[in-house]
Amino acid sequence: MGRATDQADIDAMRRAVALAARGLGATSPNPVVGCVVLDARGRLAGEGHHERAGGPHAEVNALRAAGERARGGTAYVTLEPCNHTGRTGPCAQALIAAGVARVHYAVADPTPQATGGAATLRAAGVHAEQGLLADEAEEGNAAWLTAVRRGRPHVTWKYAASLDGRVAAEDGSSRWITCAEARADVHRLRAESDAVVVGAGTLRADDPHLAVRGRPGAVQPLRVGVDTTATAVRPGARILDAEAPTLIAVAEDADPRAVAALSARAEVVPLPRAGQGVSVAALLDALYARGVRGVLLEGGPALAGAFVAAGAVDRVVGYLAPVLLGAGPAALADAGIPTIADALRLRMTQSVRVGADLRITAVPEAAARPAAPAQKER
Amino acid sequence: MGRATDQADIDAMRRAVALAARGLGATSPNPVVGCVVLDARGRLAGEGHHERAGGPHAEVNALRAAGERARGGTAYVTLEPCNHTGRTGPCAQALIAAGVARVHYAVADPTPQATGGAATLRAAGVHAEQGLLADEAEEGNAAWLTAVRRGRPHVTWKYAASLDGRVAAEDGSSRWITCAEARADVHRLRAESDAVVVGAGTLRADDPHLAVRGRPGAVQPLRVGVDTTATAVRPGARILDAEAPTLIAVAEDADPRAVAALSARAEVVPLPRAGQGVSVAALLDALYARGVRGVLLEGGPALAGAFVAAGAVDRVVGYLAPVLLGAGPAALADAGIPTIADALRLRMTQSVRVGADLRITAVPEAAARPAAPAQKER
Repeated sequence: MGRATDQADIDAMRRAVALAARGLGATSPNPVVGCVVLDARGRLAGEGHHERAGGPHAEVNALRAAGERARGGTAYVTLEPCNHTGRTGPCAQALIAAGVARVHYAVADPTPQATGGAATLRAAGVHAEQGLLADEAEEGNAAWLTAVRRGRPHVTWKYAASLDGRVAAEDGSSRWITCAEARADVHRLRAESDAVVVGAGTLRADDPHLAVRGRPGAVQPLRVGVDTTATAVRPGARILDAEAPTLIAVAEDADPRAVAALSARAEVVPLPRAGQGVSVAALLDALYARGVRGVLLEGGPALAGAFVAAGAVDRVVGYLAPVLLGAGPAALADAGIPTIADALRLRMTQSVRVGADLRITAVPEAAARPAAPAQKER
Repeated sequence: MGRATDQADIDAMRRAVALAARGLGATSPNPVVGCVVLDARGRLAGEGHHERAGGPHAEVNALRAAGERARGGTAYVTLEPCNHTGRTGPCAQALIAAGVARVHYAVADPTPQATGGAATLRAAGVHAEQGLLADEAEEGNAAWLTAVRRGRPHVTWKYAASLDGRVAAEDGSSRWITCAEARADVHRLRAESDAVVVGAGTLRADDPHLAVRGRPGAVQPLRVGVDTTATAVRPGARILDAEAPTLIAVAEDADPRAVAALSARAEVVPLPRAGQGVSVAALLDALYARGVRGVLLEGGPALAGAFVAAGAVDRVVGYLAPVLLGAGPAALADAGIPTIADALRLRMTQSVRVGADLRITAVPEAAARPAAPAQKER
């Protein structure tokens, strides 16, 4: 109490945020969490992060590393320490048992079953304070926090386009618009996601694989193909191989013979139809029920348009290549936006060079965008 | 001779490059030039730039400011001092007469009538050296140097688009996709250009004004409307007002009555037809003959496509707004690029935030791109 936050506190929490990020893509349905423990004299005693769902929480890993040096020290945790016994014991109790004197946590836990950790700590005489680097920690846990608050997975729409916004040339060729570094960066995005989603047009045109390559130790995301009519995923399609799990979403009214044939090759989930496609909301519900918290939407333009129309894009990551095409499909189509006043306005949060290309990250200006009428979905 | 280039030399030349930029848009058909004179002890004695075609050259302005302090000093000039008597006397002689001991010039003058200044200086015992900050000076004079070397104006294609590459929404509305700062920045680009060019689609849809606003003292560019059929510019069109000069390019085979009606309201230049439009090469020839060295191509997509197809885009400046539309015209159309292997590959030279938007600057990777067959032009 009364101790001012100083640079050492900030440094420790920043390190905790960085540690948390290591868990992206591997912890769902749990959040990513990082923890740093300093001893009573402010020296690093231990650090850790939540590595996998079902594995020890960040605090437990950090306390294990710190051992007796945690006594009288300070713990920096990116999320409020949990108060419940799930697959592991409550972290608030672990911190108390280790004799930690102070706990800084960046973001409060919004889930009813886990919240209350701070109160438990305080009741045991531990000084618990919320808010240190809250924005950075929130950003680092955006997928999980958004998912918990909205009851559906957080969706990042990724596209790769020419400067004039084309994702392929007039003849459909698209390999490659962006540079090798940008394509490798997409594998990072996949590795940090729980599910990767593409639509029927992409399944037909590109026969995408969608698994993570080039990132040893990465947890493979669930590969989700939206194949409304159950006719886009052919036998031998790359998405069906054994490198990652696969789920094919079809419309409830798809031809039963086509669905049966598909079911022999992959797990199939039938969903209510909406317009030309399946209901985006129903798809996200189905993914959430499977523990998916962070979705990477990889295309194509029509499916991305349906997500935009449904108000279900939480983040946009665009790779822009210094290339001009002048013809070919645009990155986004059929988003239900007839006029400029209805445009989806975003806020650019980052733009950074990736090899020869530019990666632009943006988030919707309004926290919540009302969903368009159902008939606009497709 | 023997004196190493040091930081003071670099600083002086960098200042000269900055001074030169003040002349952009006002000096054609002359280059922009900046000059800094240090006295014999290395102190600033005078500086100047070429302000307007017909006005004193940069060296003369700087020497006037320096007076007797130039004697024994060093002059830093962004371009080789001229050796000929045009509307003003030769600068090489002025430098000799002022008693300057050394001249650093960044870029050699490529024009036959002006070259030879360095030789004249050396013959008079002045140490003249080329190359200091040559890249920066070249970049600052890109329009004039490109124009002189290629015998046609340098073309900057500017577009303003949503993240998904649209320049308007589905219903044609486009006010405003980009932010106020980006729109003000376009007026800077116009002020730095000798001519601003738009096509018939833009003339019809937007009734653009194209003059520079908000930049006191700016020389207004020539406003050029490409109105192939002489039917897009209506009486009372904003491009016809008195705020800036106007030139309307029509096809030689346009309806003579339409051309006659247009000629009563603006200067009209008939050009050979190429495909759906007029010949880009002929348009650029006509502008070059009028002293235009730097062209700002503002759209629309079809005219930009014709310029790309003609290999006549030297620089791309894109303003990208964090906005999604999902429908509406793309920034570039009909560029004669059927497949990814034929894409126009660029090199991104800059990306910078302008208000909420991003400005991307890129130049073609190959110094020269062969022109597409004439039938591809439009």
